[in-house]
Amino acid sequence: MLKTTFNRIPKKLMQAETTPAPHEKLAILAEKYTRVRRQTEALCRPLKTEDYVIQSMEDVSPTKWHLAHTTWFFETFVLAKYDTAYEPLNPDYAYLFNSYYVQAGDRFSRPHRGLLSRPGVDEVYAYRAYVDERMQQFLDAADESLAPEVLDVLEIGLNHEQQHQELLMTDVKHVLSVNPLYPAYDPDTVLPASEPLDMDWADIPEGIVHAGYDGSGFSYDNEGPAHRVFLEPCQLAIRPITNAEYLAFVQDGAYRNPVLWLSEGWATIEREGWKHPLYWKPTDHGWQEFTAAGLRDMDLHAPATHLSYFEADAFVRWAGWRLPTEFEWEHAASGRALDGHYSDERVFHPQISSKYAPAGPYHNLFGSAWEWTSSHYSPYPGYRAAPGALGEYNGKFMYNQFVLRGGSVATPSDHIRATYRNFFPGYARWQFSAIRPAR
Amino acid sequence: MLKTTFNRIPKKLMQAETTPAPHEKLAILAEKYTRVRRQTEALCRPLKTEDYVIQSMEDVSPTKWHLAHTTWFFETFVLAKYDTAYEPLNPDYAYLFNSYYVQAGDRFSRPHRGLLSRPGVDEVYAYRAYVDERMQQFLDAADESLAPEVLDVLEIGLNHEQQHQELLMTDVKHVLSVNPLYPAYDPDTVLPASEPLDMDWADIPEGIVHAGYDGSGFSYDNEGPAHRVFLEPCQLAIRPITNAEYLAFVQDGAYRNPVLWLSEGWATIEREGWKHPLYWKPTDHGWQEFTAAGLRDMDLHAPATHLSYFEADAFVRWAGWRLPTEFEWEHAASGRALDGHYSDERVFHPQISSKYAPAGPYHNLFGSAWEWTSSHYSPYPGYRAAPGALGEYNGKFMYNQFVLRGGSVATPSDHIRATYRNFFPGYARWQFSAIRPAR
Amino acid sequence: MLKTTFNRIPKKLMQAETTPAPHEKLAILAEKYTRVRRQTEALCRPLKTEDYVIQSMEDVSPTKWHLAHTTWFFETFVLAKYDTAYEPLNPDYAYLFNSYYVQAGDRFSRPHRGLLSRPGVDEVYAYRAYVDERMQQFLDAADESLAPEVLDVLEIGLNHEQQHQELLMTDVKHVLSVNPLYPAYDPDTVLPASEPLDMDWADIPEGIVHAGYDGSGFSYDNEGPAHRVFLEPCQLAIRPITNAEYLAFVQDGAYRNPVLWLSEGWATIEREGWKHPLYWKPTDHGWQEFTAAGLRDMDLHAPATHLSYFEADAFVRWAGWRLPTEFEWEHAASGRALDGHYSDERVFHPQISSKYAPAGPYHNLFGSAWEWTSSHYSPYPGYRAAPGALGEYNGKFMYNQFVLRGGSVATPSDHIRATYRNFFPGYARWQFSAIRPAR
Amino acid sequence: MLKTTFNRIPKKLMQAETTPAPHEKLAILAEKYTRVRRQTEALCRPLKTEDYVIQSMEDVSPTKWHLAHTTWFFETFVLAKYDTAYEPLNPDYAYLFNSYYVQAGDRFSRPHRGLLSRPGVDEVYAYRAYVDERMQQFLDAADESLAPEVLDVLEIGLNHEQQHQELLMTDVKHVLSVNPLYPAYDPDTVLPASEPLDMDWADIPEGIVHAGYDGSGFSYDNEGPAHRVFLEPCQLAIRPITNAEYLAFVQDGAYRNPVLWLSEGWATIEREGWKHPLYWKPTDHGWQEFTAAGLRDMDLHAPATHLSYFEADAFVRWAGWRLPTEFEWEHAASGRALDGHYSDERVFHPQISSKYAPAGPYHNLFGSAWEWTSSHYSPYPGYRAAPGALGEYNGKFMYNQFVLRGGSVATPSDHIRATYRNFFPGYARWQFSAIRPAR
Repeated sequence: MLKTTFNRIPKKLMQAETTPAPHEKLAILAEKYTRVRRQTEALCRPLKTEDYVIQSMEDVSPTKWHLAHTTWFFETFVLAKYDTAYEPLNPDYAYLFNSYYVQAGDRFSRPHRGLLSRPGVDEVYAYRAYVDERMQQFLDAADESLAPEVLDVLEIGLNHEQQHQELLMTDVKHVLSVNPLYPAYDPDTVLPASEPLDMDWADIPEGIVHAGYDGSGFSYDNEGPAHRVFLEPCQLAIRPITNAEYLAFVQDGAYRNPVLWLSEGWATIEREGWKHPLYWKPTDHGWQEFTAAGLRDMDLHAPATHLSYFEADAFVRWAGWRLPTEFEWEHAASGRALDGHYSDERVFHPQISSKYAPAGPYHNLFGSAWEWTSSHYSPYPGYRAAPGALGEYNGKFMYNQFVLRGGSVATPSDHIRATYRNFFPGYARWQFSAIRPAR
Repeated sequence: MLKTTFNRIPKKLMQAETTPAPHEKLAILAEKYTRVRRQTEALCRPLKTEDYVIQSMEDVSPTKWHLAHTTWFFETFVLAKYDTAYEPLNPDYAYLFNSYYVQAGDRFSRPHRGLLSRPGVDEVYAYRAYVDERMQQFLDAADESLAPEVLDVLEIGLNHEQQHQELLMTDVKHVLSVNPLYPAYDPDTVLPASEPLDMDWADIPEGIVHAGYDGSGFSYDNEGPAHRVFLEPCQLAIRPITNAEYLAFVQDGAYRNPVLWLSEGWATIEREGWKHPLYWKPTDHGWQEFTAAGLRDMDLHAPATHLSYFEADAFVRWAGWRLPTEFEWEHAASGRALDGHYSDERVFHPQISSKYAPAGPYHNLFGSAWEWTSSHYSPYPGYRAAPGALGEYNGKFMYNQFVLRGGSVATPSDHIRATYRNFFPGYARWQFSAIRPAR
Repeated sequence: MLKTTFNRIPKKLMQAETTPAPHEKLAILAEKYTRVRRQTEALCRPLKTEDYVIQSMEDVSPTKWHLAHTTWFFETFVLAKYDTAYEPLNPDYAYLFNSYYVQAGDRFSRPHRGLLSRPGVDEVYAYRAYVDERMQQFLDAADESLAPEVLDVLEIGLNHEQQHQELLMTDVKHVLSVNPLYPAYDPDTVLPASEPLDMDWADIPEGIVHAGYDGSGFSYDNEGPAHRVFLEPCQLAIRPITNAEYLAFVQDGAYRNPVLWLSEGWATIEREGWKHPLYWKPTDHGWQEFTAAGLRDMDLHAPATHLSYFEADAFVRWAGWRLPTEFEWEHAASGRALDGHYSDERVFHPQISSKYAPAGPYHNLFGSAWEWTSSHYSPYPGYRAAPGALGEYNGKFMYNQFVLRGGSVATPSDHIRATYRNFFPGYARWQFSAIRPAR
Repeated sequence: MLKTTFNRIPKKLMQAETTPAPHEKLAILAEKYTRVRRQTEALCRPLKTEDYVIQSMEDVSPTKWHLAHTTWFFETFVLAKYDTAYEPLNPDYAYLFNSYYVQAGDRFSRPHRGLLSRPGVDEVYAYRAYVDERMQQFLDAADESLAPEVLDVLEIGLNHEQQHQELLMTDVKHVLSVNPLYPAYDPDTVLPASEPLDMDWADIPEGIVHAGYDGSGFSYDNEGPAHRVFLEPCQLAIRPITNAEYLAFVQDGAYRNPVLWLSEGWATIEREGWKHPLYWKPTDHGWQEFTAAGLRDMDLHAPATHLSYFEADAFVRWAGWRLPTEFEWEHAASGRALDGHYSDERVFHPQISSKYAPAGPYHNLFGSAWEWTSSHYSPYPGYRAAPGALGEYNGKFMYNQFVLRGGSVATPSDHIRATYRNFFPGYARWQFSAIRPAR
């Protein structure tokens, strides 16, 4: 079961809306193109060449694959289609760097991405430079005759690359974590200290609410159509669960007690030998956590992260609570500022802080760490996949996955919305994923 | 991922309600005890001793295991607990015939149930007779001092056995189907002919509807709490999809076209080599289907059954439709007569007929074959698992399963409700499961 | 890797020899036919119908499969070929009961033999009776015009069935052993007590010796051609290793000490969780052993049996000894009486006794338990597979198997020779297999 | 089942012999140390950093692991033991670069060697330089008080590194081969053309021959003790099988014909989908072969190489021949010049040429490609494993492996003898392994 956060197409492909004039939009996207492409490469700056190559588990892709695949997207869906003069740098790359787009041709087997030493890292950067240069020329030459769908595809490509920025960061963290030397992603990282905040709850009243995206900006197709949902009354926690709270669960023997777990969760624990969260490590000097700065003492006030749905679900059952539905979460988040700790800060470690919403009621809804909801990832009423290679896989993953909301320290700040639906299977725990309970 | 339709506890364990007086209820349940226990054994009458032993895949249990496990339930949760004079026939049976009740002690590994030749079939029937006799004595001796929860447990035990009647039938069908001799469950079975009915649609208007059980009879905990849901307007098909319609899908190359399938569905097709529904068989004389009467020519007007969620989902995508949510289905079914083709008829083959609802709009909502909904099996708002061994696993299976509604030819007629939630994982296709599309 | 003791063809198919006159041989074989066929059925007498159905691991075949497969052999290679009037009882049986003879047509998947409830046990016995009757008629009608190869095939078929008698017994023992109830094969079995015999050694001098069969009776093709081998001087133990000796090895921590084991042996221990021999069981009352009479206290003077090659090899390494080569063993056994404990005694439990060779030097070389040699199962110089379905697989198993010599309590007394080569892969331990060290 | 050519210890550890005086031997080994260590690094010169990291299958180790592991050997068994002043560069390396020496401490899981990006390639070279410098100082300071076993261990370490040179080359070839870009190990490689030589046979008469090493130089423990073997008369081919001859076998449908294969061989073909040798590739322009120079047209006169035992065995069966035993091979090779094509030439492609033995009878017995024998890898009579970490695994691999003889283009010319026993499991085909038939 492979991870696929990057399979959404923007709503705009399907419906007419009031948008900026084409030439304005072109200028905006051209600027964004340069920025996003540079950001991706900046994330890789602390890495050694060898780090780019490793696929530490099937869900992970090598860094150089991320770099090439995001480039392949622009080559395949913009240049090859709309730039009649375009010559590919290497025709084999289309095969190597396609991910799952069946309609875009054959693709190299995903679990074997870590077996490819060539093209080398330098060649992958050369590929990026080559495509960036052609894209620059193409965008410079664009005028009013440019087909509007080119702008749409360009916008998707940039959102697609931003999603891969997050995966690249979480994949690199995993690659480094399996090494007994526990190398730091960036030894200069200063981990932020979390603020101790008492647990409290905010009310969500009953009623019909609106869910899904209905604005005029960019959104993915899975965020729509906007529709109505009835909520029964409930309460949502004002902050995520901390390491201290999760530690109490671990120390209560939770990982040895089948009664607390979903049947599949318990099977996973037994098969994989889970005893605690993925990046925790018990040592003679107490609990440590693998971070962007290497192995460090655990901050008990920080949000417990890198948790699977199974762990989130078991924790709230143990505590006598539950997870919120994605609609409860969205309703609580709706209309609030998107401020939070994002990848723009380049501090890849989540924290609890009241900085962005001093008046409350909620802290850290956005940024810092994604929050699991109890909602299976399902289509909204009236959802239909868009035709063509970009759309073919849009609904493909609506099976055995759960929705997460809110973004993380690995999400770019302009890549999140209250309606944004991230999703992962129940066992996945290498993302920055946390728990905000409801009751 | 194991099947577990039999893990529900009745709502009544948790809430006080107006129920029949205890002595009336006792009389009703005592009569039902005799009837249900006999029914189970009647289902086995056509079998040879050897048929009772086989576990043809991990999801299947041997017939003699079903016979013993349902008996173990009464022994463990009624006699051992409330009959102080009770001596078990064989103390090892507690270990052999526990299924997943962790709190009720250790249990024999599920995938190895087919490796046990002993106790033999005769010994298992002796075990049933022994427990039935003790139960009879226990119920005869019961007076007003009987704790009310005994009646509750008895009621669960009978519903539990009725669920196993359905599994026993579908398991036996699977066991016989893997044999190249294609033996008939009952060679005397006369397969019913389905009625040709044109496809049509009935409207479901938008609005807040009530979902879940709120009556005073028996229901499972997963059918509650009753709550409100908002439905967007839609249409529901008046009958399930027929073999003829599904055959068009097969002949259109659906099993070779990844674009139609969920990602996990396509992976399943490739891994398992699926080319058509489980019990279909292409022969030189056209399509045949494995039935209770052995291999027979396919009835094109009959409902397409033994379909997985993957197949149901791909079919409706191909047709331009979708599956209904469980709330749409329940709303359509609410208030309608439960009449249909059930196991009481002892004709284990689904059919489409307008006999039970000549005025429409819906045909075969109940009985004949379960209908897949698009709803992941999730807890209703406010759901909480009941404590103790009976309740421990109640919510355990709310992961990676989809809800089916309406009952089948293998369901007892007094074991179905509009609110009844059956559930299976997406790949499961050995149940009598069908498609009723929405749009 | 599947067991295949039954894949040999007699040497006589390939070379002319002095044999009894055809009509004498016919009479001998006709008598033997009746005897062997009855013997096979006698072995099954203590079984319940359910016991016939189970395949407790991939290497095991259900009892009813053995009964049918040995019958299929005579049907396919004698009746169908040489009896022009023969009509098969059921043409599907050819598919169900072929084992691996590719040239004899398709065959049912071996690991799924335990999924077949039909034909039932009564039908299998009817199949045996049907073929036996036709064979009787065929043999009665035979005169001097009978092709000599028919006698050869008949002789193979009888040896083939005798091999299956041994497998049937060891398979049944395994089937019963995986049941937590530990049912006895025959509760009336009286286990024989072994005689305490001090360990001692007999000399084998250096020199060129003859190996392989060169007599005029029946032998398998893998026993030839007879050839010369040079032996360096060595010593061979006068009796097999006892349970007491093997227990010292177990109690010395051998199953936790990787240094003692072959690399593959250690991997097997870790994967399978081996802690002691297959049928040993530590209890509160000391070590017990699963036997034909059920779980019984271990006889410390009895030969340690049901050992894999891995265990035999690790034991002799621990003891500072080694296993003999098959040529050392054959040379020691050559010319000695074949007397020993065989299946004719119907006491399916090995023992050490000086009864058959009071003067020594060797005890229990023949019968009681097979003895592992250090020899990989390889062809003798000049060996060539015979053509046709009977011969096709003759050399197929000469890979990753080790030779065992001497026969066991499950071997018929007329089915053993000093030159007889049994063989199993290194992990196999459900046979009556023991250790006789050399040094 | 893991590859383990590098687990032998020299015979000299166990027996006194006439050897050079210690100071002479020290001088010889000190010179060899410098030479071998440089050679290893020279093999890596054409590689990109990314190539060092990949583990393309479980049997393969990453290049940087080979570089570090051979260094760890000298650090652990020489410096840490005999140089009291030695400080390890990084104590974690002992864990990361141990291979299977249980007595030398814990070790990192073999199948996960390809998940380690750190230490980086530069750090591994620094590790080599560090150990080389300390070794240089240690050897410079050595005088007559040096314990003789240090020289022995040094000699093993150098032979160990030479074995890894061969594995490093075959592993790199495999790593590059799984890449759809088919990168060349060295694009400047000029592939040598093979000489067309007619097949012919040389006689080996019957008699007792001597086998195993009994000289005074270095040899592995598995080459002894020297002993006597009786050979029946036979003939050995004068040259290995060519691509043309093997192609006839492929084109005769051999990979679709189960009758030709060992049972395990056929199971491997079906499981792995083998259709031809590992590095062959059918193209529109005919057969190509993956070589050190990338994909190239196949030289029909070259020896067919990179064959498994299964393929070698099936080929000779198809041709009506057989493989020689290792004793037949050794007898034929005994007393002949060791000249041939070795890694010293730095042309990593096998060829048939009469250059080294113009008078015959045999060509290419040594160098070019290893030759499979029919001999399972078993201990010679009287063989005993030496004690201690170096020796613990000496006999561990004498299970399910076959002996190969003669060396290859990846073997150093001073690392081969007529008595040298290489060994691999039957499925292994990434070595330079070929067929020389006997009959």
